Amino acid sequence: MVNPTGRGLFPSRLYAILDPAEIRGRPWESVLKALLEGGARVIQLRAKELSARELLEVANKGRMLIRTANGQWIVNDRVDVALAADADGVHLGQEDLPLSVARKLVGKEKLIGVSTHDLKQAREAEQGGADYIGFGPIFGTATKETGYAARGVEMLREACRAVKIPVVAIGGITEANVAEVWGAGADSAAMISDLMRAEDVTAKVRRILAIHKKAIGNRQ
Amino acid sequence: MVNPTGRGLFPSRLYAILDPAEIRGRPWESVLKALLEGGARVIQLRAKELSARELLEVANKGRMLIRTANGQWIVNDRVDVALAADADGVHLGQEDLPLSVARKLVGKEKLIGVSTHDLKQAREAEQGGADYIGFGPIFGTATKETGYAARGVEMLREACRAVKIPVVAIGGITEANVAEVWGAGADSAAMISDLMRAEDVTAKVRRILAIHKKAIGNRQ
Repeated sequence: MVNPTGRGLFPSRLYAILDPAEIRGRPWESVLKALLEGGARVIQLRAKELSARELLEVANKGRMLIRTANGQWIVNDRVDVALAADADGVHLGQEDLPLSVARKLVGKEKLIGVSTHDLKQAREAEQGGADYIGFGPIFGTATKETGYAARGVEMLREACRAVKIPVVAIGGITEANVAEVWGAGADSAAMISDLMRAEDVTAKVRRILAIHKKAIGNRQ
Repeated sequence: MVNPTGRGLFPSRLYAILDPAEIRGRPWESVLKALLEGGARVIQLRAKELSARELLEVANKGRMLIRTANGQWIVNDRVDVALAADADGVHLGQEDLPLSVARKLVGKEKLIGVSTHDLKQAREAEQGGADYIGFGPIFGTATKETGYAARGVEMLREACRAVKIPVVAIGGITEANVAEVWGAGADSAAMISDLMRAEDVTAKVRRILAIHKKAIGNRQ
């Protein structure tokens, strides 16, 4: 089910983050279905407001929807929930469990992604056995207070050169600027707000993937 | 290390809950040492304000201190942290991971306690394989908004009759009323505020254990 190299994770070039607190009161299932319908295939569940029991329920139901679509389902922070829901992976911030600890718990079958904010963290995550890194915040972000200033596209370019594992750019990425991060070499672009707050989530995803095809696809 | 029956968990009759947010700015290590010095041997780590990484660090350091004293170390909520820190057990509220899910993750070697608030939940936890239950809130509580009215000592008595596994009374228990919950049949009394806010934690624990010896010990 899981591609062991990690590189195969991001053929769609979009890393969608589903946050039930950001979806303007809509049912999360409908937003997830809309993401899949639009073509998103790597989706992270981030839901800091939910209890572990609620998170597990979302993770379990979401896994079924995502597997049917041949997508990958990554649970943020909670390694225990990722294991219990048999998600495809877990994503760790710098304040979450350390990579080495999480790897012991999930084994090699599950993907582990690590949020990184500078080249040192990026290299450490690669050396520690991360399957991919998040790198950012690239632009200013409305969703999450990271405590880091915007890294910009040039530092993203350096990060993409610094590691061999896939790099997921994150932080303030929207339909309007996503071509820049792909152009800088990011394997994938993570998006939360621009997706979650979209009136028509399916159409939003389709437009984003069409941008990749048009602006970047021709060069590859 | 762990007593598989669970009953052996509570010879000291005190279930101390260490919450770094409640210790008036003192270092948590000094409070933990004071608890052990006073004679506490079952200690739960509850630290909702800490990140997973911080929680793991406390859990790891605490485990070493507690093992040296032949105590038991229970991590609240986070099954992954309990596993990673090799704690003796994990404690689950009704909003945390379900007992059956947690059991699959931790196996039979680790204790699982479940917070219950009525006889139905108490019986369910026992049938589901919990090693002990918390039951409460017995009195009004200053520490945690449980959403449940005070259960009182009579309902505690019923809970102790309803299940065979150990019952840890919790909620508003202090040095002043702890004899009542032991008198009602509770195997142990959980305390947070009265311990955490004590000027001299060691002396507080000693006084509490002396109350048990004097008021209850004579009858056994």
